[in-house]
Amino acid sequence: MTEQETVSRPRVAVTFGDPAGVGPELIAKLLAQPQTSQVADILLISDETEIADAGADAGTVIDYVTEPTPGRPLLHRTRGVRPEGGFVRQAATAEGGRWALDALATALDLARSGEVDAILFASLNKSSLHLAGMTQNDELHWFEEVLGADGFTCEVNVIPGLMTSRVSSHVSIAEVDPLITTERVEGATRLLHRMLAGSGLENPKIAVCALNPHAGESGKFGRHEIDVIAPTVEKLRADGLEVSGPFPSDTIFLRARTEEFDGVVTMYHDQGQIAMKLIGFDRGVTIAGGLRVPICTPAHGSAFDIVGQGIANLGATQHAFDLAVSIGSQVRASR
Amino acid sequence: MTEQETVSRPRVAVTFGDPAGVGPELIAKLLAQPQTSQVADILLISDETEIADAGADAGTVIDYVTEPTPGRPLLHRTRGVRPEGGFVRQAATAEGGRWALDALATALDLARSGEVDAILFASLNKSSLHLAGMTQNDELHWFEEVLGADGFTCEVNVIPGLMTSRVSSHVSIAEVDPLITTERVEGATRLLHRMLAGSGLENPKIAVCALNPHAGESGKFGRHEIDVIAPTVEKLRADGLEVSGPFPSDTIFLRARTEEFDGVVTMYHDQGQIAMKLIGFDRGVTIAGGLRVPICTPAHGSAFDIVGQGIANLGATQHAFDLAVSIGSQVRASR
Repeated sequence: MTEQETVSRPRVAVTFGDPAGVGPELIAKLLAQPQTSQVADILLISDETEIADAGADAGTVIDYVTEPTPGRPLLHRTRGVRPEGGFVRQAATAEGGRWALDALATALDLARSGEVDAILFASLNKSSLHLAGMTQNDELHWFEEVLGADGFTCEVNVIPGLMTSRVSSHVSIAEVDPLITTERVEGATRLLHRMLAGSGLENPKIAVCALNPHAGESGKFGRHEIDVIAPTVEKLRADGLEVSGPFPSDTIFLRARTEEFDGVVTMYHDQGQIAMKLIGFDRGVTIAGGLRVPICTPAHGSAFDIVGQGIANLGATQHAFDLAVSIGSQVRASR
Repeated sequence: MTEQETVSRPRVAVTFGDPAGVGPELIAKLLAQPQTSQVADILLISDETEIADAGADAGTVIDYVTEPTPGRPLLHRTRGVRPEGGFVRQAATAEGGRWALDALATALDLARSGEVDAILFASLNKSSLHLAGMTQNDELHWFEEVLGADGFTCEVNVIPGLMTSRVSSHVSIAEVDPLITTERVEGATRLLHRMLAGSGLENPKIAVCALNPHAGESGKFGRHEIDVIAPTVEKLRADGLEVSGPFPSDTIFLRARTEEFDGVVTMYHDQGQIAMKLIGFDRGVTIAGGLRVPICTPAHGSAFDIVGQGIANLGATQHAFDLAVSIGSQVRASR
């Protein structure tokens, strides 16, 4: 390993997610691959017991260290307090949710102080989080409250060959329309461009969805395409971004699927998620985008039904780690 | 052919669609198959010139009659007046749009007087229709104005193994929310049930989409699921329909794709169309549902770019014809 490689290697905080689910065994499988600790400095936010249990679930032993050692994951102790009786497996509990949140909070502290360049967290369970008292609508809003953000933030969804960002997200359909503003469309497009560039694409091609059916059909079914989206696309093109649209959302994903586009800016949650789940559910990754560091996680859930059977698929977790490393490298380079 | 078969055979009016596109050659190909005129009494709404030209495009001769003859398509003269110079091909024109609309109006007259049980029309071109002066947002509204309807109407989209109906359709996203009423959800579900039953399914399984992301997440992202959709589903189940939901729309199509459901009731245009086009674009059919007779058409456009090359795919037109026959049979049986 050259000095140059050491310097540019990103520091990635990794958490095991909900202790009742498949997160721990998937992280153990990820760490069992030698290249994982070669491409990044891993800070494992956990404790000895969780690391041992995760290894046992995965039929491996996690080869971690407690003092920084190149090429080995470093235990960084979570602020969480382990309950005396341990955790119930394969069920949502307040204890599991609290443990998962505390590990994430520890990782966010490291991000805030500039000690890590990216975060990878394994699957959480929403019921556990709510039982543990999380009040925000989604993790992104919690991250944003903790880390702060000075621009547009949104979930970025990733499947192999395609990324989406969202101009609006966890709101009712009735609340979507007023959120489709010039500022937000520009924010979601620039954010997607940064994430695509961070993932290694030099000049990514981005399509922007229309809000309304048939892209508003020349204003008959709404004017956001004419008044908001088209002018924003023009502005961004003038700035040199390869952006086009607005396109009717019921055909743009057919084009994006054939790799005509690298990214699609969606106007609301289901517009993108219907398509992304149909095209590539198995390897989906979610990135909390627009924060101080990229926070990546597999899109699948904690899969209580298959815990400890060794059959949970590593694909999405691997993909999430790869994105944390590549985007984290850009963050590190820009520090 | 037994007398019974003759009596139950539906009468299907067929129009060639936009004369500039692939509609005429596809109808010619359909009629070239002997079984087409065996399963239905075909009324070909056209004139001699169009029939000859369509056959020439398809490399065949349409074997029609001008007096009712079992097993042969019958020319029923369109009310349209052929322009002196004929039609420009492969382009949208007012003349082409007018000709296509007049053929359809002739078919609608036959439907109104009970002389046909179903209508199949080949692809139209929206620009031609607008040039010809059609002012309605879509064909369905025009059909409805001409034919009248005493209940809920909507486009029903069909791909092999899956049908959708829509509680709202050609309106802006801002206008969707107030349209999601108990009456409309019930109407769209019952209509889908009738179409599925008409297509030959005895006890079709229907899923109803949520309106909001995550199905509203227990009311946090909207209350339509709790206040409107769930109670309507319960009511229909009590009436004996195999209906369930509301389901988050970003995962229900994954389940519907594996044939867990025969039909999906969608709340707005793109919710269904994003999924349907990704799952089965090539063989898609649209039915104007809820009118006096089913009006079926292939979902693809008039494909000006490939006219007369013999490469236009018959799949969707065949599927549209099959649905016109099966649903038309039920209409005929209920007369």
